[in-house]
Amino acid sequence: MPSSVSQATASDNIASAGAQRLSRETLLAHFERVRAATESLAAPLTPEDQMLQSMEDASPARWHRAHTTWFFETFVLKPHDPTYQPVDPIYDYLFNSYYQSVGPQYPRPNRGLVSRPSVAEVGTYRSQVDAALLSFAQSTDDDIWQTIAPLIELGLHHEQQHQELLVTDLKHALSFNPMWPAVYPAPQNQSDAAPALGWVDFPGGITMCGHSGDLANDGFAYDCEGPRHQVLLRDYALATRPTTNAEYLEFVRDGGYTDPRWWHAEGWDRAQADQWQAPLYWIQDNTASDTWTTYTLHGRVDVNPHEPVCHISFFEAAAYAAWRSEQGCDVRLPTEFELEHAAAGLEPAGNFAGPQPGQSALHPKSADGEAQLKQVFGDVWEWTQSAYTPYPGFKPVAGAIGEYNGKFMANQMVLRGGSVATAENHMRATYRNFFPAHARWQFSGLRLARDT
Amino acid sequence: MPSSVSQATASDNIASAGAQRLSRETLLAHFERVRAATESLAAPLTPEDQMLQSMEDASPARWHRAHTTWFFETFVLKPHDPTYQPVDPIYDYLFNSYYQSVGPQYPRPNRGLVSRPSVAEVGTYRSQVDAALLSFAQSTDDDIWQTIAPLIELGLHHEQQHQELLVTDLKHALSFNPMWPAVYPAPQNQSDAAPALGWVDFPGGITMCGHSGDLANDGFAYDCEGPRHQVLLRDYALATRPTTNAEYLEFVRDGGYTDPRWWHAEGWDRAQADQWQAPLYWIQDNTASDTWTTYTLHGRVDVNPHEPVCHISFFEAAAYAAWRSEQGCDVRLPTEFELEHAAAGLEPAGNFAGPQPGQSALHPKSADGEAQLKQVFGDVWEWTQSAYTPYPGFKPVAGAIGEYNGKFMANQMVLRGGSVATAENHMRATYRNFFPAHARWQFSGLRLARDT
Amino acid sequence: MPSSVSQATASDNIASAGAQRLSRETLLAHFERVRAATESLAAPLTPEDQMLQSMEDASPARWHRAHTTWFFETFVLKPHDPTYQPVDPIYDYLFNSYYQSVGPQYPRPNRGLVSRPSVAEVGTYRSQVDAALLSFAQSTDDDIWQTIAPLIELGLHHEQQHQELLVTDLKHALSFNPMWPAVYPAPQNQSDAAPALGWVDFPGGITMCGHSGDLANDGFAYDCEGPRHQVLLRDYALATRPTTNAEYLEFVRDGGYTDPRWWHAEGWDRAQADQWQAPLYWIQDNTASDTWTTYTLHGRVDVNPHEPVCHISFFEAAAYAAWRSEQGCDVRLPTEFELEHAAAGLEPAGNFAGPQPGQSALHPKSADGEAQLKQVFGDVWEWTQSAYTPYPGFKPVAGAIGEYNGKFMANQMVLRGGSVATAENHMRATYRNFFPAHARWQFSGLRLARDT
Amino acid sequence: MPSSVSQATASDNIASAGAQRLSRETLLAHFERVRAATESLAAPLTPEDQMLQSMEDASPARWHRAHTTWFFETFVLKPHDPTYQPVDPIYDYLFNSYYQSVGPQYPRPNRGLVSRPSVAEVGTYRSQVDAALLSFAQSTDDDIWQTIAPLIELGLHHEQQHQELLVTDLKHALSFNPMWPAVYPAPQNQSDAAPALGWVDFPGGITMCGHSGDLANDGFAYDCEGPRHQVLLRDYALATRPTTNAEYLEFVRDGGYTDPRWWHAEGWDRAQADQWQAPLYWIQDNTASDTWTTYTLHGRVDVNPHEPVCHISFFEAAAYAAWRSEQGCDVRLPTEFELEHAAAGLEPAGNFAGPQPGQSALHPKSADGEAQLKQVFGDVWEWTQSAYTPYPGFKPVAGAIGEYNGKFMANQMVLRGGSVATAENHMRATYRNFFPAHARWQFSGLRLARDT
Repeated sequence: MPSSVSQATASDNIASAGAQRLSRETLLAHFERVRAATESLAAPLTPEDQMLQSMEDASPARWHRAHTTWFFETFVLKPHDPTYQPVDPIYDYLFNSYYQSVGPQYPRPNRGLVSRPSVAEVGTYRSQVDAALLSFAQSTDDDIWQTIAPLIELGLHHEQQHQELLVTDLKHALSFNPMWPAVYPAPQNQSDAAPALGWVDFPGGITMCGHSGDLANDGFAYDCEGPRHQVLLRDYALATRPTTNAEYLEFVRDGGYTDPRWWHAEGWDRAQADQWQAPLYWIQDNTASDTWTTYTLHGRVDVNPHEPVCHISFFEAAAYAAWRSEQGCDVRLPTEFELEHAAAGLEPAGNFAGPQPGQSALHPKSADGEAQLKQVFGDVWEWTQSAYTPYPGFKPVAGAIGEYNGKFMANQMVLRGGSVATAENHMRATYRNFFPAHARWQFSGLRLARDT
Repeated sequence: MPSSVSQATASDNIASAGAQRLSRETLLAHFERVRAATESLAAPLTPEDQMLQSMEDASPARWHRAHTTWFFETFVLKPHDPTYQPVDPIYDYLFNSYYQSVGPQYPRPNRGLVSRPSVAEVGTYRSQVDAALLSFAQSTDDDIWQTIAPLIELGLHHEQQHQELLVTDLKHALSFNPMWPAVYPAPQNQSDAAPALGWVDFPGGITMCGHSGDLANDGFAYDCEGPRHQVLLRDYALATRPTTNAEYLEFVRDGGYTDPRWWHAEGWDRAQADQWQAPLYWIQDNTASDTWTTYTLHGRVDVNPHEPVCHISFFEAAAYAAWRSEQGCDVRLPTEFELEHAAAGLEPAGNFAGPQPGQSALHPKSADGEAQLKQVFGDVWEWTQSAYTPYPGFKPVAGAIGEYNGKFMANQMVLRGGSVATAENHMRATYRNFFPAHARWQFSGLRLARDT
Repeated sequence: MPSSVSQATASDNIASAGAQRLSRETLLAHFERVRAATESLAAPLTPEDQMLQSMEDASPARWHRAHTTWFFETFVLKPHDPTYQPVDPIYDYLFNSYYQSVGPQYPRPNRGLVSRPSVAEVGTYRSQVDAALLSFAQSTDDDIWQTIAPLIELGLHHEQQHQELLVTDLKHALSFNPMWPAVYPAPQNQSDAAPALGWVDFPGGITMCGHSGDLANDGFAYDCEGPRHQVLLRDYALATRPTTNAEYLEFVRDGGYTDPRWWHAEGWDRAQADQWQAPLYWIQDNTASDTWTTYTLHGRVDVNPHEPVCHISFFEAAAYAAWRSEQGCDVRLPTEFELEHAAAGLEPAGNFAGPQPGQSALHPKSADGEAQLKQVFGDVWEWTQSAYTPYPGFKPVAGAIGEYNGKFMANQMVLRGGSVATAENHMRATYRNFFPAHARWQFSGLRLARDT
Repeated sequence: MPSSVSQATASDNIASAGAQRLSRETLLAHFERVRAATESLAAPLTPEDQMLQSMEDASPARWHRAHTTWFFETFVLKPHDPTYQPVDPIYDYLFNSYYQSVGPQYPRPNRGLVSRPSVAEVGTYRSQVDAALLSFAQSTDDDIWQTIAPLIELGLHHEQQHQELLVTDLKHALSFNPMWPAVYPAPQNQSDAAPALGWVDFPGGITMCGHSGDLANDGFAYDCEGPRHQVLLRDYALATRPTTNAEYLEFVRDGGYTDPRWWHAEGWDRAQADQWQAPLYWIQDNTASDTWTTYTLHGRVDVNPHEPVCHISFFEAAAYAAWRSEQGCDVRLPTEFELEHAAAGLEPAGNFAGPQPGQSALHPKSADGEAQLKQVFGDVWEWTQSAYTPYPGFKPVAGAIGEYNGKFMANQMVLRGGSVATAENHMRATYRNFFPAHARWQFSGLRLARDT
């Protein structure tokens, strides 16, 4: 990933601030950085790469680039800039994802069947919308600015989500190529060992979780992160770091994938049907030798035992915890509130995709450092035992923007903490990511918890 | 349904008692009643009816009768009665449902492809196991009795669950018959009107939910109902009765099934794919006249506007609440804890399948009576917004019995309160029923809640 | 199978005669025999057995019994007997198979989901229609008799086809039962050996194939068997008997199912997808010992090496021939015309399902006897390399009766000769049976051919 | 399509000559022209276009370009040129189509999931193999030349087949794009009217059909076109031209797609399941106005009533003939032998994709000219009523080359005559194209026949 793209630093991390209190200059500078970061991720990809759609749940990189642009065009420019001329009316149809109230959507499973506009034209589309938005936003009067600033900020977070999906969808698609393409640079400075697993105790009690919704003072958050509300916790402990490949391999070698005792019924059925034998992308090169490789965005490599295990489903995470409990220590997956509580005081720093995308290898690394709880943020999303359901008092925003989160609150599990593919300034302690229990193509791992 | 079967009365409702404190005589009398109740449900069914399997999720009546018998054979007789001779070794394979630790299972989707043993032979199997169990249980010494009594009680609750499934699976299968078979008697004494919808307020705070696990003192419960634990509630109100057909029809007539705004994304996709236009079993006989009929176990009848709406999925229940909220009153589905809290002090009485199955029409009826909260128990299961996840500290029992609940704790929603197909002495305030969010073939409806 | 049913003998085999030249008495006596033969096949089946539908292509025995009755009701009684009162109007919908011009059809895949009318009521339906038809046919005047006689004869051949399907569908369904039900008696007098394979030469030239369509003089035939027309044959030879299990086992043991060289591309894909490893119903009880058993209607038995191989698809038959050609002798499947030419002078006698169904074991037996060409008729249907396409000049009859054959003339292969499940008086040299190339559940085998 | 590519003329049409009698110079010049023609077809396509795979039966343009190259590498260079260094060993896996005997094949449905090697690298692969082949072929001694010349010629015909597939697969994929991309130039000089339909009579009798297999004297042919053999024809007549859009529209407007009487049973089921209402690519822009447009490779255009109807399946062709027969004139689809017989004396000239691809619009045009039988070659492939089965005495070549045709001889129908996407020098009267009866994405139409 080219290193020339992003100059964001922690000090001007505007994602931790509400748009309303940001000057236009700051927000628009952030706009430029986030938009550039997407292009930075796409830069090493060929037009052919950007066409790939390997499953219905994934989208081509080309589409991610266009759809995030459509978001600004649809929610900022068209309704607020009377002089705006849409780049092409059909883009409304092609690049709407699932906003039913905006209009019909080109069928999701067919996104990979659209070769025109070309990848270059998508680039032009991005440039034109960027120029139009910047020009409009810089010159519009303050009333309108107050209206569009939160939409711009939302659009940037939306785009950062799609940056992560661009990476994970791409990895999934490229894994079908037996040439194991290496598209991003290999990681540097990888630790040779993970610290031994320890535990950090947390006292229970009533605690506040979720976001206040006061974006001006408390920074940006999605609607589903609020309302902030009281949560009753019991005493609990969290593992000092996520589960490693070495630990997970014990489960694999002990026949974890062939013993239904550890599995949810649906997880077992899925594992059998899809012939899961290890985390996604792992290949056992030689049954006898018991060595494993895995596909990464820098090519196929040996599984590093010290890294956090990654690309597992909720079902696998839960099965691992059930199996590990039989080894003598009563463990489980944490709830989303336990992880939020534990992370509440911490800076959202870690092995992220950026602010400078070029600094990241888009691959988890072994835990290190002095923090008691390591890798709370970054590296791998951590599956929780919490279903993605509305917080007390949650109500979606009216209109299309309200379609963002609430309509997915069924059959999804919450993940916390961000991954190597997450932008650092997109993360916060209240962040609720969510995926179906069987999803494996995100950078998803686990951290054990236990009652104390 | 024949009325000659059951003599249970509320006074000897043993399901509200732990097996340990019951005399053998009482528990075994209960055994006979529950086993007879199953046969009572099956009595009006022909051998042909008992073969029907209309989807993978459902089973033939014949199979339910055999599987519940297999449960006693497998968990009581075989391990504890050294003199017991199995009726047929192959029944172990044919009638195991999903107990991986017991052995292989005949494929569930093929249960309808087994015509032998015949329905009559399944009846014989039931009689032989009943006789063997009663003989053994009456004569075994007290140590063994202490061991088997909880298994027998569990087996009876297991059988009562299957009684409900027998009824709902049968209804689903018979609905494919254009002759609309009437197999149970039509209901009597149906009210002509439902009372107007009112609200009952409940104060929030920390409350105890779930079952203690002390079956001896607090009566029977499944493992998933515990541990009993503190729950933090906010102030809330519940509707005085479930939503009626008349109220739900407003949603249908307002285009509820054609407007994605009200729906979860997955619910919308499902509704489109399966062409949902109203609750399951409803048919609009004449588009112009807007009259609807529905299939019941007493034949096809007009939709009674006063009855609770029934045979809707979680997605429909949630869509209805979202739509109703736009009508001016901010409503939602309740959580499972709100319903448990509200039901905590109440007797589990209502329009159930029994104790005397012959007294029930297996069809919901209009709300009536003086209770503030009506139909808390019986009539229709009420969808909650709670996903079926483990309570804090939950741990499945080791061994096959432990496969009962925990392994289904993914992608299921909790329902509360019981239905017309539930045995009355199978119900209690802590009872957690669960089904996938798209399931419609249970007697499932909803009760609105709101914040106060 | 009860032996009390049928008194037909070869001498009064009316299927070899056109209805028009038959006296009413003779045709109606045949009517009674054929109708009774169906009941004879169903007699050993329980109501549960008669409900089974194991795939979309198959139907429950109960349905076959009703549908064949519906045929007489629909095509004879309703249009011609003004006094006829239909047994139940809904039967028109339930028991129409695919006659689009008659009216809508209950969905074929759901035939197993209909438990009412009961099996006993289907029996009553049969009796009532039989009585009505006999009474009407005996008393109607000659003009009407001339009209209905061919329809009755067609209905009887239609019923005989369904007798065969009843048997093969039943076998398929019962094979899902791990108890391996035995429903018909085991065969007697099975030969211990098959004669060595020899060849019979036939000279080529122009020959007449197909049926004249003159039913009065040349006996009954389906429309697809005509027009009789010139066919140009080359010199060819046919094997003296069908391929045996022993011969086919050589193919299996030589890895025939794992080598794509022998297979049509589509056959190979199907074999892989459905994991074919041997003929349908074969199970290799012990990989090491290489012994095989097969399911038959008299239970699971050892594969008899001397019997004709059976329950193979066209793809397997063709693969066997391709493999055998590599063994030194250039063989192939015959064309339908070669088989018809060779069979032209022969009496259609053999191991059939009847005329007396009770005399048959519904299982192929080893070749014996003095005939040069053995088992030309009966035992197993022989796959040909001929696609089921219209003969020159073929034109379907107008109206519903015309839907009988022509509309299936795509993606079907012709089989010749009849099987153990075919009624003897249903067979003739011009008979064209047809099934998709992947179908295995008929009693289908092969006879090799070669160029000379 | 660029016009600079091909200088082939009818006079040096080497495809009508056997390789053995061609000088190296002539054959290698032809090699260069055919290879260049593929590149000419690909030239207007973007890398994104060349990635598209819209169904399992189709392949990306990128893949067609590589696979045809792999053919020469695999069957000419590797076995015969000891100095040849493969471009990349993994191409063997990626670009093998279905040659089981050569090695494993990358899964066909995933061909669109391979973005590397890039489109440009595929171009390089082509150049390198071309250079290597030319260099080797020019310098090798005569013995080896005699061996490789037929392989080169086969490879060129193979490539010409893939040129056609490249075009039809591309059209199918681009039709998913609501922008209706125009990639090739619009046709010129389109006639304004089609001549009235007339008939040409042909006398029956024994005639010779198929190819002699003597490539040296009779020109190239695929194995499936032989052996040349006697065929017995009846008197017949052929329509003077293919059926036009105007004629076919009468069928559409008369409810042809909603009346099962005209259809094969399987065709009807397919038409219902896939919601066929007109030929593929047709859209009825306004139900009231009854105007239709169609997608072409030069964009979406009005359906021209005078052009031959195109993009219909065998099922539609047969349904049209059945419907037309009811209009008073007894018509049918021709057999493949009738078309071959009628075409036997004719020059294979017509509206083809080339020899000069740039001269073609890749779209059928209205019949014109003085020939009695018009459009015998070119414009649209004509469905026949003949299943694709082996000719008498047909035997596949041993080895991988033998996998070319024989293994597809099941469930395919023969088409004759070539289309706008066929290279002119790829065509001959004995040519047997074949596709499944439901296939619609080829340029496939029909010509009526009748008995006389």
